[in-house]
Amino acid sequence: MSLPLRKDALAKTLSSLHPFDPLDPVEVKLAVLILEKALPGVPLRYKRIDVLEPIKKDTVPYLEAERLGSPLPKKPARLLFAYFHRRDTGGFFKAVVNVDTMKPVYIKELPKDVQGPADIDELIEIEEICNKHPAVLAEIEKLQLPKGYTVCNDPWIYGTDSDSETRRLCQCYMYIIEADHPESNHYSLPCAFSPVFDQVTKELIRIDQLPTGADFTTQSTQPWKPVKCVQYAHDLLDEPLRTDLKPYLVKQPEGPSFSVVGREVSWQKWRFRVGFTNRDGLVLYNVTYDGRQTFYRLSMSEMTVPYGDPRAPFHRKQAFDAGDVGFGITANQLALGCDCLGHIKYFDGCRTDSKGNAVLLKNIICMHEQDNGIQHKHTNYRNNAATIVRNRELVVQMICTVSNYEYILAWVFDQAGNIEHEIRATGILSTMPIDNESGLKVPWGTNVGPGVMAAYHQHLFSVRIDPAIDGHNNTLYYEDSVPMPVDKELNPFGMGYTSKQTVISQAGFADLSVEKNRVFKIRNDSKVNEVSLKPVAYKLHSVPSQMLLMSQDSFARKRAAFAEHAMWVTKYQDDELYAAGEFTNQSRVDTGLKEWAARDDSVENTDIVVWHTFGLTHNPRPEDFPVMPCERISFMLKPDGFFTKNPALDVPPSTQGFNQSTLHKEESCCTDKSKL
Amino acid sequence: MSLPLRKDALAKTLSSLHPFDPLDPVEVKLAVLILEKALPGVPLRYKRIDVLEPIKKDTVPYLEAERLGSPLPKKPARLLFAYFHRRDTGGFFKAVVNVDTMKPVYIKELPKDVQGPADIDELIEIEEICNKHPAVLAEIEKLQLPKGYTVCNDPWIYGTDSDSETRRLCQCYMYIIEADHPESNHYSLPCAFSPVFDQVTKELIRIDQLPTGADFTTQSTQPWKPVKCVQYAHDLLDEPLRTDLKPYLVKQPEGPSFSVVGREVSWQKWRFRVGFTNRDGLVLYNVTYDGRQTFYRLSMSEMTVPYGDPRAPFHRKQAFDAGDVGFGITANQLALGCDCLGHIKYFDGCRTDSKGNAVLLKNIICMHEQDNGIQHKHTNYRNNAATIVRNRELVVQMICTVSNYEYILAWVFDQAGNIEHEIRATGILSTMPIDNESGLKVPWGTNVGPGVMAAYHQHLFSVRIDPAIDGHNNTLYYEDSVPMPVDKELNPFGMGYTSKQTVISQAGFADLSVEKNRVFKIRNDSKVNEVSLKPVAYKLHSVPSQMLLMSQDSFARKRAAFAEHAMWVTKYQDDELYAAGEFTNQSRVDTGLKEWAARDDSVENTDIVVWHTFGLTHNPRPEDFPVMPCERISFMLKPDGFFTKNPALDVPPSTQGFNQSTLHKEESCCTDKSKL
Repeated sequence: MSLPLRKDALAKTLSSLHPFDPLDPVEVKLAVLILEKALPGVPLRYKRIDVLEPIKKDTVPYLEAERLGSPLPKKPARLLFAYFHRRDTGGFFKAVVNVDTMKPVYIKELPKDVQGPADIDELIEIEEICNKHPAVLAEIEKLQLPKGYTVCNDPWIYGTDSDSETRRLCQCYMYIIEADHPESNHYSLPCAFSPVFDQVTKELIRIDQLPTGADFTTQSTQPWKPVKCVQYAHDLLDEPLRTDLKPYLVKQPEGPSFSVVGREVSWQKWRFRVGFTNRDGLVLYNVTYDGRQTFYRLSMSEMTVPYGDPRAPFHRKQAFDAGDVGFGITANQLALGCDCLGHIKYFDGCRTDSKGNAVLLKNIICMHEQDNGIQHKHTNYRNNAATIVRNRELVVQMICTVSNYEYILAWVFDQAGNIEHEIRATGILSTMPIDNESGLKVPWGTNVGPGVMAAYHQHLFSVRIDPAIDGHNNTLYYEDSVPMPVDKELNPFGMGYTSKQTVISQAGFADLSVEKNRVFKIRNDSKVNEVSLKPVAYKLHSVPSQMLLMSQDSFARKRAAFAEHAMWVTKYQDDELYAAGEFTNQSRVDTGLKEWAARDDSVENTDIVVWHTFGLTHNPRPEDFPVMPCERISFMLKPDGFFTKNPALDVPPSTQGFNQSTLHKEESCCTDKSKL
Repeated sequence: MSLPLRKDALAKTLSSLHPFDPLDPVEVKLAVLILEKALPGVPLRYKRIDVLEPIKKDTVPYLEAERLGSPLPKKPARLLFAYFHRRDTGGFFKAVVNVDTMKPVYIKELPKDVQGPADIDELIEIEEICNKHPAVLAEIEKLQLPKGYTVCNDPWIYGTDSDSETRRLCQCYMYIIEADHPESNHYSLPCAFSPVFDQVTKELIRIDQLPTGADFTTQSTQPWKPVKCVQYAHDLLDEPLRTDLKPYLVKQPEGPSFSVVGREVSWQKWRFRVGFTNRDGLVLYNVTYDGRQTFYRLSMSEMTVPYGDPRAPFHRKQAFDAGDVGFGITANQLALGCDCLGHIKYFDGCRTDSKGNAVLLKNIICMHEQDNGIQHKHTNYRNNAATIVRNRELVVQMICTVSNYEYILAWVFDQAGNIEHEIRATGILSTMPIDNESGLKVPWGTNVGPGVMAAYHQHLFSVRIDPAIDGHNNTLYYEDSVPMPVDKELNPFGMGYTSKQTVISQAGFADLSVEKNRVFKIRNDSKVNEVSLKPVAYKLHSVPSQMLLMSQDSFARKRAAFAEHAMWVTKYQDDELYAAGEFTNQSRVDTGLKEWAARDDSVENTDIVVWHTFGLTHNPRPEDFPVMPCERISFMLKPDGFFTKNPALDVPPSTQGFNQSTLHKEESCCTDKSKL
C-alpha cells in the first residue's frame, strides 16, 4: 500500500484539519499504514477507523481563541482509533494511532465477550453466505414457492440471552420476495425459520423455527400458503397515484442566509461546526449565539429498540442502532429534490471498508432553511397596528437506514435562540410471520397484512448534551410548579403557585413529572441575568416518554440502564460519549451511564454532561405498513434567562414585498354575497 | 330600519346557506328586525348575534345525502340567537329567532348573576370612560409623568371572588405610554393602581392599589420613577435590524392542490366545511377522508388562564378567552404576506356591533398548503433503491388577539389521514408593576424588564372533538402498554409487554399517564378492520400537561372543572358546546363539563363527544418579553386501524423535476480535498 498523496500535500491536508473535522479519507490510509507496520504480516480485517474525540482540555483553549479572535494556540493532538479483527486468530482489537507521528499509541486485544459493531461488508457477506447455505436452501425448498418467488434475509444483531456466549453471532430473518423489483417488500412475507451464523467462522450454528400462532409453539418448515404481498414502491401499487398534488416550490433568489467555510456554519447569529462520526453520524460542535457559548457538543448518543414479543428467538430482538451498527455508516447519501426541498448544502463523511480502503460517504448530511410559520406577533387591538415576524429555521439533518427502519434526525435552529432536535421514525416495521387464519391475533403485536404481524416495541433514544452555557462550569437543576399552601395571609384565595428548584448536585438520574410541570435547566452559577436576577440558563423542553417496559431481570434492562430514567447527569470525562457504553453488540451489561452516573462525582458548577432519554412506545397500526408515515418526536433547548429579552426582536418584519405570497381567488358564496 | 335586500334576493341568499355556513350579514339585520318588532320601543344594546348550532338529528340526514350523492332532504331549521341588554332596565337577555318565519322562538331575561361576554364596543367604551374619569385623572396626576408620556388602560374581565356579586364589573389595568407611536409597549410600564367600573351603569366602583413589592403591601400612588420601556416595534428598537436574512419564497405555479366551493374545502381526499362562530372562531364540520366520515365537528371550546400571583386584585385574574370574549370576535383580519406564506385562501366572518349593525370580519381565517419534510421513506440498503414521499399539509388557521396575548390556532391536515391541532401562544405577557429595587423578585413571577414583572400562569385549553368514525355511534377507550408478568411459560425472558384496553362506558373524565403510554382511542364497534381484526378507530395523540394548580376551594377550580382532567367524554346533546358552560364571565361555577359529565349517561357505542384539556404552565422567561417567541403545543388525531394500510402510499414520489431544489455550492475544505 502506498500513500495517496505527496508528502507536502499530505502535511498540508493534515494541518488544515480543524479539531472537530471528521475523518479525512487520507487519514484512513495513514491509520492502515501505521497498523500494518506495527503488525507486519498479520492479516487484518478492518471494522472501523474514525477520529478519536479530541481531549477537551486541550481543545477548549483553541476554541476560545477562535471565538475571541486571539492568536491560535497549538491544536489538540489528532488521534484516530480503529477496531479490527485478526483474520488468523479471529481476535478483536482496538488501536489508537497518531497520524502526526505515524505511530500507534496502543494496540490492544479486547476480551472474548466484547463484540464490535456490525459493518457494511460483514452484513453483505453474511447475507450472501446465508442465502447460499445448503441447509438454508433445504428449508427454502420446503416452502415450495411459486415460480418467480425468491428468498432473501436481513442479518440481525443476535442480541443477548446468556452470560456465557462469546461467539460473534448473527440471526438471519428470512423473507420471501414476490417481485423481481429492487423494492419488492419482503417484510410483508416473513418466513418461519431463521438461521444463526457465527460471523467470524461463517459457520451455521442452527436454524431457529419461529412461532406462527398465538403461543410459543413452532413447527418444521411448511409449504408456503400464498398471500398477497403489501407493496409500497410506486410502480408496484395496485392503485393509481394521486394526480391532484400541485408543485410546491421553495425559491431563494438571493441565495440562502447561511454561509459555510469548511464545516463551520454561520447563520443568523448562530455559529457551529458540523461534525460526523461513523457511530453518531451528525454531531454539532461549539455552538455559539452572537458570540456566546451555548453547547460544546450535541449528538444522538444511543438508541435501543427492544421488542415486546416474549417468544424465542424474538426475545433477543433488542437493537442498539448507534452502538450495534452506527448512525453514521447507515446514513443515506441524499439526493437533491428527493430528500430535501429548497436550497440545499450537503456535507460528506467517510468510513473504511473491511480492507482498509476509505469510502467517501457523499451527501450524508444536508442543511437548508425552512419557514416555520410565525415567530412572534402582536396586534394593538386599539388601532390594529401589528408587528409580525416569521420563524425562519435552519435544519441540519441526516437520514439513517437501519435495515428495515429509517430514522430522520434533524437539529433545527431558530432566530430566538432555540435549538430543536426532531426525530422522525419511518421505514418498515420489523415483521414476524403469523398464520393467516380466521381471527388469529396476538396481544403483543398487530396484524399489518395477510400472514404478517408487527410486534410491539419501543424506541428509546439517549441524546447527549454537553453544555457550555457561557462557559464550561454548569449546573443541572429542575424546577417544579407547585401550589402554594392555602394560607389566610400568604395565599388567601388559593390562587398562588410558585416554582421549586432542586439542584442535582451529584452524578445520577432523575425522572420527569408532567404533574409538576418539571422543567430541567442548565445554568451558569457565575453569571446572573440582570433582568431576571437569576443565573443565565438554557432549559430542556423534554419529551415525556414511557421508559423501558422489560422486566427488572431482563437482559434488555441490564444492557440499557439509560432507558430506565429520562434525565441523567455526569461529570465530563473524555471518552464517555455513548449512553450504553462503547460496545453494545451482544453486551450483557450497560457500561455507559450505569457506571458513570454511579460515580461519586459532584456535578454542581463544573463541567457536566446531560443526557435525555426519550422515545416512542410503538404498538404498530395497520397504517404503519408497508411503509410507515413519519412519527415525529422532538425536544428543545430553549434559552431561559440566557438573554435579557426576546433575541429575535431584530428580525425584519414579515411583509408582502419580501414574501411575495399570492392570493387565492375563487368564485364562492362569500364573494357572491358581497355583490348583493 | 329597512331590509337591505329585495325580498326575492333575500330569499335566495337565505336558501343558499348551508347548515354549517356562518352568520351572514343579512341575518344580523333580520334578527334585529325580529327583536325590535317583538320588543317595540324598548332600547336594546346588542352584544352578540350568531347562528344557533343546527340540531344534529336534523342535520345528519342532510350531510349523509350530500356525502352519498342522494337527493337532498329538507335542511335543518336555521335559527339565530342573540344576547342583548335592555338599555332602560340593564336586564340581560337571550333570544332565539327564526329568520324563515321572521318570529322569535323565545326571548328570556337571564338571572342577575349571569354576565354575557365582553364585546368590542363595550371594551372601547370602558377604556375611554376610564381614561377620562376625574378620579383616574387624579391618580395619573400623582404619577408626575415626564412630558410626552401618557396613560392607557386594558379593561380586564373582573373575575370572581364572591358568590354574591351581580354587577357587571370591569378591572382596568393602567399602563404608561412612552412614545407617541401606535405600538408603544405600554405593558412594559404598568401603573400600580387599577380602577374598577360597572359596565352597565358606567360608574367607577373603586380604585384598587396594586402591590409592588415582594408581599401584599400596597401604597397610595407615588410619582413614577422613570425606567426604560422595553419596546418591540421595529422602529422603536435601539438595535438595528438583521440584514442577513435572505428572501424565502413559496411558489405554486400551477396553483394550490385544494379547491373551495363556498365554505367547502376539498384537498387530497379530505373534504370539510370551514365554519365560524363569534365564540369558537374557526370550526371544522363534517370532515371526511376519501368519502368516509371521521369527525362531525372540531373546535376549540374554551381556554382558561388563571394567574398564580396570590395577591389582590390579581387573584381574580382568570380569563376564559373563548367564553369571556370569543376567539371569533378577537380573530385578526389577516394580511397577505404578513401572516401567511405562499398561496393563500381567506375566509370571512361576521359579527354584530352594539347597535345591531353587521360588521364584516374580512380575512379572519386563512388556508394554505405547506411542506413539512418527509412523509415516508425507505431505502433498500442492498441496492439503495429508495421510495421517498414528502409530507404536504393543508393549514387552516386563525390568529386571535385577546388584549395582550395572541393565540394562533391551526388545524393541519396531512395526506396520511392525520389531523393536527397546533396552538402557538405569542403576544405580550400580562404584566404587573414591581419596584425597581436591587435584588427584588417574587416567587410567583419573573422580572422581565426594569420595574415590570410577569406572573406565573397557566393556559388550559379544552378542545371539543365530536367524532363520527365511520358513523355517529362511537366508543372512547384507552390503551395502556403494560409489562407481562414474568412467567416461566408465558414470559420466560421478561421481554413481553401487551396493551390493556379500558372502555369508558359512562360519561366522565380520565387522566393521562405517560408512565403507561396511555393512548385514548375512539372506535366504531360495528366496523372491524379486516387487517388488524379490531374495530376501526382514530387515536388522540394527546399533550401531557400539568392540570390546574389552584386550590380545591378556589373559584378558579369551581369555574373551570374542565381544567382538572385531561380527557372527558359526554353523550352528545345539542347546545353543549363549551367546556366551562355558556356563560363564563364572572361565573361562580362550571356549568359545562362538570354538569354534563356527571350525568348518568352511557357513552358506549353511541353518539359521544370527547374533550381534551391540555395547555401550558407558563412561568415567563425574560426572553418572552417584550413580545413572546411562539410557544407551540399540538395534539393529533391519527387513524389507528381506520385504514388497512398507509393511506399516503399513492402520493407521488418526491423528485427533483417536481421540487426544483437547488444545490448550494461553496468553496470549502471539502471541495478542496476532493481535488487532491
